[in-house]
Amino acid sequence: MKAAIIFGSNSDAEIMKKAAAVFREFGVSCVSRVVSAHRSPELLAETIRTLETDGTEVIIAGAGLAAHLPGVIASLTLIPVIGVPISSGGLGGLDSLLSIVQMPKPIPVAAVGVDNAANAAYLACEILAVKYPEMKESLARFRQQMKEQLAKDSGEIEL
Amino acid sequence: MKAAIIFGSNSDAEIMKKAAAVFREFGVSCVSRVVSAHRSPELLAETIRTLETDGTEVIIAGAGLAAHLPGVIASLTLIPVIGVPISSGGLGGLDSLLSIVQMPKPIPVAAVGVDNAANAAYLACEILAVKYPEMKESLARFRQQMKEQLAKDSGEIEL
Amino acid sequence: MKAAIIFGSNSDAEIMKKAAAVFREFGVSCVSRVVSAHRSPELLAETIRTLETDGTEVIIAGAGLAAHLPGVIASLTLIPVIGVPISSGGLGGLDSLLSIVQMPKPIPVAAVGVDNAANAAYLACEILAVKYPEMKESLARFRQQMKEQLAKDSGEIEL
Amino acid sequence: MKAAIIFGSNSDAEIMKKAAAVFREFGVSCVSRVVSAHRSPELLAETIRTLETDGTEVIIAGAGLAAHLPGVIASLTLIPVIGVPISSGGLGGLDSLLSIVQMPKPIPVAAVGVDNAANAAYLACEILAVKYPEMKESLARFRQQMKEQLAKDSGEIEL
Amino acid sequence: MKAAIIFGSNSDAEIMKKAAAVFREFGVSCVSRVVSAHRSPELLAETIRTLETDGTEVIIAGAGLAAHLPGVIASLTLIPVIGVPISSGGLGGLDSLLSIVQMPKPIPVAAVGVDNAANAAYLACEILAVKYPEMKESLARFRQQMKEQLAKDSGEIEL
Amino acid sequence: MKAAIIFGSNSDAEIMKKAAAVFREFGVSCVSRVVSAHRSPELLAETIRTLETDGTEVIIAGAGLAAHLPGVIASLTLIPVIGVPISSGGLGGLDSLLSIVQMPKPIPVAAVGVDNAANAAYLACEILAVKYPEMKESLARFRQQMKEQLAKDSGEIEL
Amino acid sequence: MKAAIIFGSNSDAEIMKKAAAVFREFGVSCVSRVVSAHRSPELLAETIRTLETDGTEVIIAGAGLAAHLPGVIASLTLIPVIGVPISSGGLGGLDSLLSIVQMPKPIPVAAVGVDNAANAAYLACEILAVKYPEMKESLARFRQQMKEQLAKDSGEIEL
Amino acid sequence: MKAAIIFGSNSDAEIMKKAAAVFREFGVSCVSRVVSAHRSPELLAETIRTLETDGTEVIIAGAGLAAHLPGVIASLTLIPVIGVPISSGGLGGLDSLLSIVQMPKPIPVAAVGVDNAANAAYLACEILAVKYPEMKESLARFRQQMKEQLAKDSGEIEL
Repeated sequence: MKAAIIFGSNSDAEIMKKAAAVFREFGVSCVSRVVSAHRSPELLAETIRTLETDGTEVIIAGAGLAAHLPGVIASLTLIPVIGVPISSGGLGGLDSLLSIVQMPKPIPVAAVGVDNAANAAYLACEILAVKYPEMKESLARFRQQMKEQLAKDSGEIEL
Repeated sequence: MKAAIIFGSNSDAEIMKKAAAVFREFGVSCVSRVVSAHRSPELLAETIRTLETDGTEVIIAGAGLAAHLPGVIASLTLIPVIGVPISSGGLGGLDSLLSIVQMPKPIPVAAVGVDNAANAAYLACEILAVKYPEMKESLARFRQQMKEQLAKDSGEIEL
Repeated sequence: MKAAIIFGSNSDAEIMKKAAAVFREFGVSCVSRVVSAHRSPELLAETIRTLETDGTEVIIAGAGLAAHLPGVIASLTLIPVIGVPISSGGLGGLDSLLSIVQMPKPIPVAAVGVDNAANAAYLACEILAVKYPEMKESLARFRQQMKEQLAKDSGEIEL
Repeated sequence: MKAAIIFGSNSDAEIMKKAAAVFREFGVSCVSRVVSAHRSPELLAETIRTLETDGTEVIIAGAGLAAHLPGVIASLTLIPVIGVPISSGGLGGLDSLLSIVQMPKPIPVAAVGVDNAANAAYLACEILAVKYPEMKESLARFRQQMKEQLAKDSGEIEL
Repeated sequence: MKAAIIFGSNSDAEIMKKAAAVFREFGVSCVSRVVSAHRSPELLAETIRTLETDGTEVIIAGAGLAAHLPGVIASLTLIPVIGVPISSGGLGGLDSLLSIVQMPKPIPVAAVGVDNAANAAYLACEILAVKYPEMKESLARFRQQMKEQLAKDSGEIEL
Repeated sequence: MKAAIIFGSNSDAEIMKKAAAVFREFGVSCVSRVVSAHRSPELLAETIRTLETDGTEVIIAGAGLAAHLPGVIASLTLIPVIGVPISSGGLGGLDSLLSIVQMPKPIPVAAVGVDNAANAAYLACEILAVKYPEMKESLARFRQQMKEQLAKDSGEIEL
Repeated sequence: MKAAIIFGSNSDAEIMKKAAAVFREFGVSCVSRVVSAHRSPELLAETIRTLETDGTEVIIAGAGLAAHLPGVIASLTLIPVIGVPISSGGLGGLDSLLSIVQMPKPIPVAAVGVDNAANAAYLACEILAVKYPEMKESLARFRQQMKEQLAKDSGEIEL
Repeated sequence: MKAAIIFGSNSDAEIMKKAAAVFREFGVSCVSRVVSAHRSPELLAETIRTLETDGTEVIIAGAGLAAHLPGVIASLTLIPVIGVPISSGGLGGLDSLLSIVQMPKPIPVAAVGVDNAANAAYLACEILAVKYPEMKESLARFRQQMKEQLAKDSGEIEL
């Protein structure tokens, strides 16, 4: 199971590492690269071609502001692209969310919540689970444990 | 290749049929059902269990306003859920977009653009293509033809 | 007089305890539980059934982001549900407000202001006062005292 | 069971009559009056005093733009007030929603969705059901029938 | 020349004192009072009657969230009311701005910018200058001095 | 009593004539001119100088999009300027509202609601009433009649 | 003087032809092409290279939704790119505006107003006028005529 | 190559100096002045006339709130004006962005991203490059170096 995490600027690393942590937990092999859609478009195209050759099965792309990275990647490949809007500046991530999610057909990006790179990786795992029964089992076990933990923690509390 | 299209109200059918059309074009077997997250939660849970038993591999869920349907489905299954925000009323779909995309971890929904059910189906096809090489080929052929058509159409025009 | 306070994550406790404080002040018996709509839907359904059996008369539900919790609870019971949108992330609570208030008929949620759990409890008290004359008296006394205090404090001040 | 429907302008009648229809269906006795918070504040105060004397148990107030009516009523009475934001002009009802829901403590208004007067009435019925077992039974019957109808309608459809 | 500054909560004093400072600078006699539209409506009505009796010529009203105070005052008097939206919570003052500015005819409020109590006082001075030639002269002198100061300060600077 | 109505484009006339109607009703002498802040800044400056010479006491300025007209006028005169945000295009007037209301100190504009030119004129009348007792009487009479009419119309209605 | 107009979809032609009209009026030679950033990225890159070879001096790019086209073009060339946000769907063009204007440094796009393709062309003419004195003269003449026309039209009107 | 940087308040200097740094890097001679559109309109007009006489070829104007400065400058000159929306207060710069970008034809402003003064200067350099081949070469060299640096930095990283 092979995934890639791409983001446009080193300042996004703090957010995106939450995706890498989920991949480690679920045994997904993952490469991470900082490549900008606008500052190095040729390098991005080349990176995507390499990922395709290497058998990458899902790509997570994070970006802020006019967040074109996920959409530009989606225009270059048929590998499913999951976009993580990253908040920066005063608009709270609404700019990056709209720039990511409002893609024209037939070039979709799968948007998750603002700054929610962990959810991007969980979504990637669900996509991999369509193909890999062992991932489906891992996810099922994980949800089961989460529910058992939540059941224990959900007793009446004192506010 | 098996997909499902679920939406909460008959008034959403006009939007959601654009997803069904894409599935037909790519040979994805697809069931469509009107089930509400709020008005018939038990029926929804039962529907999802049936879809799981039937081997459904990806689910598209469309909803407007406080669009909980995609998220509630995602909480009931490990099948990837693609959410289509449907615009209705004066807020232009911003309410449904935020209700769909801002899911808490580890229960992701893959959001696409407002009213863009076609893109939801293209995304579903890309997810299926992770597993099915024939889908990957169909999508590659489709993109190739699209590009050739666009190349023909993109000559200089008179404005 | 029996109420319940439910919220999806321990991080919401700081906000929700303002509701518990109001209930204590007005002698409303109240259970508080952390249960997630998305991470433990079965546990939530079971919790609501228990609350119904125990004679709970009003429920306050707080949630952030794609705040489905109040709406999902409302779909499971006829007990009035008051939703508290909790701000988190850059969108200032607009996401949770819209996710809570824009419910489809006939499954209403009574939304109060962002992070305003105290007002949720005051609303719950007004709802209980429809049935319990002693609550109506308590609220009337409370408002009267508030007005007297405000009248004392509202003399001319020096800016 | 006694309710009141108040709104500020005749142009809101088309929206508010959806609440009256629900009240008729559930046997709630209901008075409807057009009174403006801003244009006739004394008349409004007098109207609320009359409603209190008459034993009104819940009030639905609808307003557009800077929708002060629900909040002003809530400041005048302890009867629970349900606010219906009415969309008008280009802001899609966001102005009236925020004007209604963001009330300061301890003067709550129970906001429902934009233009969703029907849901306001369903919420009023749930509030009345806290006191009146026959209303609880009516609502339970109504939800049961709705679910049975939805179960019948939710078979697979052709998109 | 007589003005009044009214606001709903002591927490708004820090913002509103900027209006008082402008009034002091321009010799406008000014009373300041904390009175809430929602928590003490009768006291507010009484306060406005007193202000009318005392010959108050312009009122500045500041409020946050569902900022009804300026509009409610405007409904009680013919004295021009200037509303200052005060930001609080995550919506950045958009809620109070819309609650203040979107008043229905014929009950206007003159809205100024979010948290801009100084501008409210400058506007009040311009309104007073319609009647009082000495205020017009003071304002003209003030603008002239401001322009001379700005002309001095606007030389080329080093960035 | 002398007022002026200025707006930037003939397409705004339909909105602005509502202000002229109010002025006619209250006997305010009023000149109306189409002058653009951006397309003819020198003409605007000259127009304002003429209005000052003619004894204009209050100015209403309407504009859409990046609505600079009211603010630019306010920078040229000490006559109170009332700004009417005019909706055009897809942003519903939010662009013009913010462009008008968020003025820097000490150059205030008195903003009224989107497209609400009538309220601008009522505000202008209240400002004139600070100086002219006869206007105060007219406004008092008008409000009294409005209240009497509303009292007649506010009987119970059938929804 | 050579310009290009590029847009992603035939449905944008109606808006973009307003730019072409301005170019015709000012004698700017202009090619117009429909090329999509997402559907045909290679064709776009090739188109830009051709424009560079042909001596194009300024590019206008129009796009709706997640409007990446202007930014992607800006990443491929040093020719100044002017972006026209095109409104479509319920968000009124806010999505395309933010997708166009919030570009990361050092890859700027010059954004103009939503649907305002004419202004994009006027801006292009001003850019060309930096180099071409004859364009500067044309623009000066045009502004002068506009002002004379406005001066004639700005006499007092009857509202 | 001559540029100017103008902004309305000393508090904007921190943001605007990023533009000056880019100009220094690319050898653009640049004057910077603090001039307010509203507080000193005559000084602004005079400043622009001086800039025109001095052969200024592009102007960057930064402003916050109701950011009229870029538009007012654009109304006074044919030199291309680049507007930098500056965030201040709770609306995150949305107010200044809309006030800058939504200019009426034929008076365009070239808007860049919120607080992104660096991008304004890069855009100015691209505009100068239309005329000056040496600037085009500098920009080409700069982009080439940036790409080479990014290629070096974009190796796989550890998250």
